[in-house]
Amino acid sequence: MKIESLQNQYVKQWTKLHEKKERDKTGLFLVEGEHLITEALRADIVQKILYTGENPFNFPDCIEVTEPVMKKISQNVSGAKCIAVCIQKERTAEDPKRVILLDDVQDPGNFGTIIRTARSFGFEVIYTSKKTCDLYNEKVIRSTQGALFTMPVIRCDLAEKIRELKTESFRVIGTALKDAVPMSRIGDADKMAFLFGNEGQGVHQELLDACDQRLFIEIGNFESLNVAVATGIVMYRYRG
Amino acid sequence: MKIESLQNQYVKQWTKLHEKKERDKTGLFLVEGEHLITEALRADIVQKILYTGENPFNFPDCIEVTEPVMKKISQNVSGAKCIAVCIQKERTAEDPKRVILLDDVQDPGNFGTIIRTARSFGFEVIYTSKKTCDLYNEKVIRSTQGALFTMPVIRCDLAEKIRELKTESFRVIGTALKDAVPMSRIGDADKMAFLFGNEGQGVHQELLDACDQRLFIEIGNFESLNVAVATGIVMYRYRG
Repeated sequence: MKIESLQNQYVKQWTKLHEKKERDKTGLFLVEGEHLITEALRADIVQKILYTGENPFNFPDCIEVTEPVMKKISQNVSGAKCIAVCIQKERTAEDPKRVILLDDVQDPGNFGTIIRTARSFGFEVIYTSKKTCDLYNEKVIRSTQGALFTMPVIRCDLAEKIRELKTESFRVIGTALKDAVPMSRIGDADKMAFLFGNEGQGVHQELLDACDQRLFIEIGNFESLNVAVATGIVMYRYRG
Repeated sequence: MKIESLQNQYVKQWTKLHEKKERDKTGLFLVEGEHLITEALRADIVQKILYTGENPFNFPDCIEVTEPVMKKISQNVSGAKCIAVCIQKERTAEDPKRVILLDDVQDPGNFGTIIRTARSFGFEVIYTSKKTCDLYNEKVIRSTQGALFTMPVIRCDLAEKIRELKTESFRVIGTALKDAVPMSRIGDADKMAFLFGNEGQGVHQELLDACDQRLFIEIGNFESLNVAVATGIVMYRYRG
């Protein structure tokens, strides 16, 4: 069976997954392109694969669609040859030692890049505030390079999470430009959690106040860093 | 005088600056938004400022335009209140000690972020291959947060530049995943240059071969880093 009609009910359903509301309701999301779908298959979250032309995958539930149908379902301007409908799986981290907390990070590229970097440096879980950018946004997925399929990324109340981490003997470190200790003077601990903030506003004051310590990355006066870069520098330094 | 017509010849000229070809021809480029324009004024590269509504700037050559005219000239989806026409200024670095070389970096966000990070960590000049993303692309400018207005970013033949840097006693270090030394085992030198590559392909082999040494950032197997993050980690470590 090849789907040829733009009016096909499945095509309409899948296209709706561009919207966060629909993703939340169905627990599904879209993944585009061969490389990312291969990673999704490895993580065992693929429900079905849509393709046009050759089918590069050996997967039971593959559906051929025409190019116009593919174009309609794709969110990628330059077009995709294959798209997977994937299942949002909640993941948890068992006894993590290295944790990232994100307070209202807004840019999908930054958010995705932070998830990718966390995977590379042995960070085991990312907790995000409720206002942090949606995890299943297409740009987030692309920027993670697939790391999001296996990394636990959990939306929660950060103030509560900080309290919890402290009772579990984590050293919770907030990043800030003022009243903070240079990173080179902060040693390692067995369990560490690092809190990063919004691109414009940084970390909320009440969350910073709840941390054990404040860290700043040694930069020139009047300068600043992109949050994905700052997170990368800190994660490299304290890699698990 | 307030410009109201979308057919106004200046409006047409400024709108053309969206295209690289036109920017190259005129030596001009556009900067949007109050924060970035303030930085451009500080760097003394502003030719004129267009605004709609209140004019926040005290600058001799300001022109009021209507909202539709502003919308036409703006490249920002959410719209700008002010846009500056700026002059491309070639900058040089005098006796630099910390240099970045970029081999075909394609993503404007990555390129801009690298320029911003270089400024923050005391890197003094960035040399780019001819195929690297255009410097005056709107997304590059936004990602630099203004750092591009004062940082020398010079397009050149990288093979030639590497030879030149070596004769000037630079230690030239290429970044690579294979046949490379972990960063933690590479000490500081007086003059250092670091070479980073394209998002998908990395650094061209012949350029890597021309380097004094190869560095890799210690990540898990099968993992990788975004190039702006990798550059940030290396620049922090060897900051000037």
